Parts: sequence; structure tokens; C-alpha cells
Amino acid sequence: MYDHLKGFRDFYPAEMGARREVIDSLEAAARRYGFREVGTPALERTQMYVDKSGEEIVEELYAFEDKGGREVALTPELTPTVARMVVAKQQELSKPIKWVSTRPFWRYEQVQQGRFREFYQTNVDIFGSSEPEADAEILAFAADALTDLGLTGEEFEFRVSHRDILGGLFESFDADVDTAAAIRAVDKSEKISHNEYHDLLVEAGLSYDQAAEFDDLLAVGEDDLDELVDFAGTDRVEAAVTNLQNVLEAAADFGAREYCTLSLETARGLDYYTGVVFECFDSTGEVSRSVFGGGRYDDLIESFGGQPTPAVGVAPGLAPLSLLLQRADVWPEEAFTTDYYVLQIGDTRSEAARIVRDLRERGHVVETDVADRSFGSQLNYADSINAETVVVAGEQDLANDEVTIKEMESGDQTQVPVDEFPGDLERPTYDDFA
Amino acid sequence: MYDHLKGFRDFYPAEMGARREVIDSLEAAARRYGFREVGTPALERTQMYVDKSGEEIVEELYAFEDKGGREVALTPELTPTVARMVVAKQQELSKPIKWVSTRPFWRYEQVQQGRFREFYQTNVDIFGSSEPEADAEILAFAADALTDLGLTGEEFEFRVSHRDILGGLFESFDADVDTAAAIRAVDKSEKISHNEYHDLLVEAGLSYDQAAEFDDLLAVGEDDLDELVDFAGTDRVEAAVTNLQNVLEAAADFGAREYCTLSLETARGLDYYTGVVFECFDSTGEVSRSVFGGGRYDDLIESFGGQPTPAVGVAPGLAPLSLLLQRADVWPEEAFTTDYYVLQIGDTRSEAARIVRDLRERGHVVETDVADRSFGSQLNYADSINAETVVVAGEQDLANDEVTIKEMESGDQTQVPVDEFPGDLERPTYDDFA
Repeated sequence: MYDHLKGFRDFYPAEMGARREVIDSLEAAARRYGFREVGTPALERTQMYVDKSGEEIVEELYAFEDKGGREVALTPELTPTVARMVVAKQQELSKPIKWVSTRPFWRYEQVQQGRFREFYQTNVDIFGSSEPEADAEILAFAADALTDLGLTGEEFEFRVSHRDILGGLFESFDADVDTAAAIRAVDKSEKISHNEYHDLLVEAGLSYDQAAEFDDLLAVGEDDLDELVDFAGTDRVEAAVTNLQNVLEAAADFGAREYCTLSLETARGLDYYTGVVFECFDSTGEVSRSVFGGGRYDDLIESFGGQPTPAVGVAPGLAPLSLLLQRADVWPEEAFTTDYYVLQIGDTRSEAARIVRDLRERGHVVETDVADRSFGSQLNYADSINAETVVVAGEQDLANDEVTIKEMESGDQTQVPVDEFPGDLERPTYDDFA
Repeated sequence: MYDHLKGFRDFYPAEMGARREVIDSLEAAARRYGFREVGTPALERTQMYVDKSGEEIVEELYAFEDKGGREVALTPELTPTVARMVVAKQQELSKPIKWVSTRPFWRYEQVQQGRFREFYQTNVDIFGSSEPEADAEILAFAADALTDLGLTGEEFEFRVSHRDILGGLFESFDADVDTAAAIRAVDKSEKISHNEYHDLLVEAGLSYDQAAEFDDLLAVGEDDLDELVDFAGTDRVEAAVTNLQNVLEAAADFGAREYCTLSLETARGLDYYTGVVFECFDSTGEVSRSVFGGGRYDDLIESFGGQPTPAVGVAPGLAPLSLLLQRADVWPEEAFTTDYYVLQIGDTRSEAARIVRDLRERGHVVETDVADRSFGSQLNYADSINAETVVVAGEQDLANDEVTIKEMESGDQTQVPVDEFPGDLERPTYDDFA
């Protein structure tokens, strides 16, 4: 007997049905915003990830040499792939480019609750607009996607920050700060102790006094962002603060403002972000980690050899999202649904098949016996697939030109002339004949 | 600039939209039959494929050692994975088990027309029934799936054969025949010369005279299958012929018979088939290769360590299927569709956003400006995404409490009171106000 690999999962139909419902809902939300689906490969050249993230990244990849001697890796995320695709057709694609896709990704990492080696994400990106409306549209899509799934503003929040405010503040200290390292420290701050956090900031170039001052600055309220501008006294911080305010204003027009809270302590781990970044959290705190995140990455396309092309995106992951939905008790029911089971007794296959085909032509989910089973065993099976209506095609009934229609929930049943079923009815049930 | 790997493809939105339409249609057909979606991993232990197909298979796999020292491979097909999943839960799954899924697979092989290293298939399987109705249901699903896509019986045929007829005939010759090798020879017969084919049969153990005799036997018509029974004189061939006839009869009841032609020369390459096998071909012959195939594989689950569990399935591949659909001129149009573009002129974002949200709440695909573009540039964009209706939210119009509704196809437009749009209309267009 074989098993699946650690960190990989088999999804059987009941659970998969619920996952499909969630994915369909996320994609329907994206479609309404005009995001268009793209299809992307599971393998890319390892070099693309090394160039973007350094040699260390290879340790987290399923990377290997293919039979043609190419160094390849299972894609750990979508962003480099879509960046490559934008560069490849940048002349012919009309902008803004708005793409969506749902698919698995792979990382060789520690398996823990809600974190797997094979994991699914819905990636949604806009390329070609640096305007705050693009950031706001990503926030609005994310909010719609979650409320469509039955969540409310009581249950999630988007913690919104801005990379260039953080970078600009570091720059304004009288110190030689490694901004990337300092931002990684901010990203980790919630997961480590206060002292460890300050140690990291000091390693990145601040003094301990400056680290404390930086902390105070990040705690500023939404109405006091000007204090940051005053502190830094640079165009960079001023522009970043204005941009953040503009994004929040546009988010208000787009209906997403109510889900956003200012949280400059939110930094996002990945190096490529450049502007607004945000993470979705469980408002109740029961799901302790960030559910998903997104943000602006204006430099990536150019670094991939393309024309400068601003970009912003978000990528809800299905595993952390399922924790949030389950906590809020809105994860879809994990159960089969079946409209009809057509039960055969005796040699009634031909007439049963006619009924099955008529019902399927109306778009219904219809099963019938394909295993030559007894009446009882067919009825048990119909029950196991939650058939709403059972149509009994029995030899004796058919001799009288009748079939029996049974409502499974109540057990009620009635006889119906066979030529009236399904007749002109789109979705005939027991009630139509009782 | 990075490129994608050879044999891997990037699907941009127009092409992906057509592919999605085809996949949705295949899956909808499967759903009506009560097939339930499963989710399966992209990586499995290499040993599973070696046990099933021998060491040689590794040459065709993307196989490597993962960072934990496990020998793993990108899945080249679904059957071993679903067999593993059936074995893992055989007690609790109610039978017949009817599963469907669409996903990519990977093989390191020569890239040619309609054949890639990353390729997509919709796999549909029934586990737990040895009855002819199960084989017929797979044929009926396949026929429905193709006719749903716009194909007719003029354009495709299922060439139906039976592994046990072939095996039983080989057994009945007075010769020591390697049946697996002989069946592989039959599978290749259409792609190689007659002489080469006979050489392979002789390598498998027949004499040249017997090979010629075997050829004559395979050419038997549907009404003369008894000749095979007479020739062999074995229960095995008699049972196999009866089974094939029963499957075709059940297929008649299920509406698939008209697409089936007897073709004993069809053998299917894979070793694990045991009963009825079939391949879908382009009736016109323009697509020369088999479009897809399927069949019965009753021994696989047991060989995977499970209880004996009969099984039958089919797996349409999207690439060969797209050749067939394109040839028949029913491949979906590769174009964007958009219900509304809400065009902003001046500072009208707030009112435009209100209209956008109202329309999206009705389920429509709606885009608006997120890139601060001019009137002309927005109109060009709206045209590029094939917007059906453009709603112009202009500063002056709005000062008069009006918006302009423009039908893009005709260019006709009219002014509408802003509080009447969209009003109570589910899908307001120019015609509603003209």
C-alpha cells in the first residue's frame, strides 16, 4: 500500500466539494472585477528564483536537474511566473493587465497547521497602473471575495502598511541602515520577543534608542500620519504617506475601507514589495497567523528585463483561508448533493436510461445503477449520495406504465404515469405529483 | 528575460478563456453523471510507477530525490494516484466510487503537435463495478462530453476493443506468446508498416502464418464475433465476446452506441487494461492520432494492495481534444467578454464606483479606470476587452444628475438619469433607455 508524501494531501469528494465551492467563489469575485484567467506552468528555471531571492531560496524549493540538464524548480509562488509572462508580451498586452489563477504551489518546508508542502492559492494581479485606484481595487476584490464567502467585518481585517514609509523612515535616521534587513525585522516583530526584535533592528544598523523611537513612530494613528512626514522631513516619506492616504480614500469609494486598519508594523516578508502592503487577519485572533497578504511591487517587471511596469496583487491561500472560514462557521458543508437516483428493479434498464437521459439533459445530477445491485443496496447508495428524489423504475410499475417518485427526506412516494415523467417539468419532484 | 521551459506552455487570457470553457463543459458533463471531484497531489513516490510499469518508466518521468531523500516524481498520469486513494479508504467509500478531476500531468518526452511535457487531462473513473453498465456509462459520459462541446457523430468515433479477446486469441494459438508484448504490437500497428507489425508479433511468439491468421481474426465484423469464439474454443474468449456485446448493448440504452465502432485492432498501450478498451478518433482522419482513450483495468487496485476492485475510466486530454474541436470549427472563440466598462471623466470616481458596485452585485463583469487615463484611452481599453456597454460618468453629466449609456457595437448612446441606473434592472443596456 502506497501513501501520499508528507505535506501533500489527497482530497476526497466531500472535502473537495467544499474546497471547489470556495475556489469558485473566489474566482467569481475576481471575474466580476474583470480579472482574466491565465494558465501557468508548474516548472520554471531555478535561476529565475535565485536571481530574485538569492541562492538561499534553493533550500526551500523542489529543485532538480531535468533529463535535458536544465536546473528546474516546482514553482513556489506565482509572481515571478506572471512577471515573466508580462515581459514576454509587454508590447501586445493592453494595460492595465488584470490576471487571476488558482493552482498549487510547492515549497519544501516544515509542515504545520494550515501550512503544507503543496498548497493552493488564488493569485490576483494588476500590471500597468501605479495609481492608488489599482491598490484599492485589489483591496476591494479581497473584501468582496471574503464577504461573498459569508464573512463579515467582525471576522477579518486588512492590516495596511506601506513599504516606502518604512524604508523612508529608516533612511531618515542618522545611521547606515540595511533597509531590507530592517523591514524583515519589522515583518518578524509579531512572532518574536520585543528584545529580539530590537536586536534585529540594531543588527540592521539602528541604535537601541533609534529602535525605540522607530517603534513609537510606527504606533502613530491614522489621523496623525503627518507626524511621520514631520519626523523624516523627506519628499520620500511625504509621498509615501500621501500615497497611503490616497489608497485608503479610493478604498472607501470602492467599498473596502471599512475592512482596513492602519498597521505600519505589517511589512510582508518578501523583498520585492515597494508600496502599499497588507495582510488579512482573523479579527478575533483565533487564527493567529496572517491569513493571506498582498501589496505593490513596482520594480519586479523591470528587474526581469521588461519596461518599467508598476504592479499590485494579492494571493489568498486556501489552507489558511479555510481555517478562517471554519472558525467563522461559514466553511461549506462537506456533503454530496445529487438531484435524482433512478432505481432499477428487474430488467428495466432501457426505460430507466431514458429517464436518466431526460433528467441529465435538464442539467441535473443523476445517477442510476451501474453495478447490478439489489433494491435495498441501490436505496442505501442513493441515500449515501444524498439523492433528493429517487425514481423507482420497477418491472411491475412499468407494466402499468408507471414509475414511483420518492422524496428521500420525508420518505413520501407516489406513482406517476411514465410518460409524464419528467414530461415538461424542468425539475420534477414528489410535490409535483402528490 | 526568462523563457518558459520547452514543452511547457503559458496560457494568456484569450486562449485560457477558451480552454476554461472546454474544461467547464467536460466537468459539467461528468457532474451530471454523478462523478465527484477529487484533488490529487502533483508529486508521488517514484517507486509506485516503477512497481506498476518497470524501471524503464523512470526515463519518461520528471523524477528526482527531494530534500528529505525521498525518490519522487511529477505524476505522469492519474490512475496510480486514484488507485492509491481507493486503497487507502476502501472500507469507508460507498461503491461504486465515481471520481473526476482535471489537472496537469508531466512526462519528459519528445515535444510534437498536440503533445507537450506538461499536459492537461480530465480523468473520469468508476471503481467497484465489473458490470457492462459501468463501461457503458464511461462511453456515454465521453459521448455526452463531446456532443456538449458541439461535435457530432460525423466528427468522432469511439473505436472499441477488448483486451481479453486479444489475450484469449493469443492464448489459443499453438505457440508460447508473450501476451503483453503482442498487445503492445497491436497497439502500434497503425503507426508502423505491416511488415514491422508482423515482425513484432513474431518476436512476441507467433509464427508469420499465425500473425496473418490473427490479422484476419481482428478484421471480423460486429455480427460475426462468434467466429472468434469458434476459433479459440475457450471460455475466456467466449466470456470476453459476451462482455463486449453486453457493453455495446448497454451503450445503446445509454445513448452512446451510435458513436461506437468495433475495432479489435485498437489495444491501448498501457499494460494495466483488462477488458473493454476504446480510443476516440477524428472520423475525418485529419487528426491522425487517437484523441483520447480509456478502458477497464480490473487488477490494478488489487496489485496496489487493495481488495479486488474492478475499475473503468477515460481521460480526455485537452491538447488532442483541442485539435479535434478546432478541426470541427467548434473550439470556443478566444476573446475577452465584458459586460460593462464604467468610464470616468474628471473627478467622478465616487459616483462611478457606486455604479460599478451596483452592477457587480448583479453578477456582471465590470471594469472601471484604475490607471487615471484619458477619455480616449479608456474607450480604447473598453474596446480591447470587448465591453458590451460603456457607462460614461462625466463631470458635466453628473452635474445634471445624468450618465451616458453607450452600446459599443452600434456606437449608439443616450443619457439616463443617474438614479435610474442600474435602478431595478438586472442587466440594463442601451435598449432599455433608447
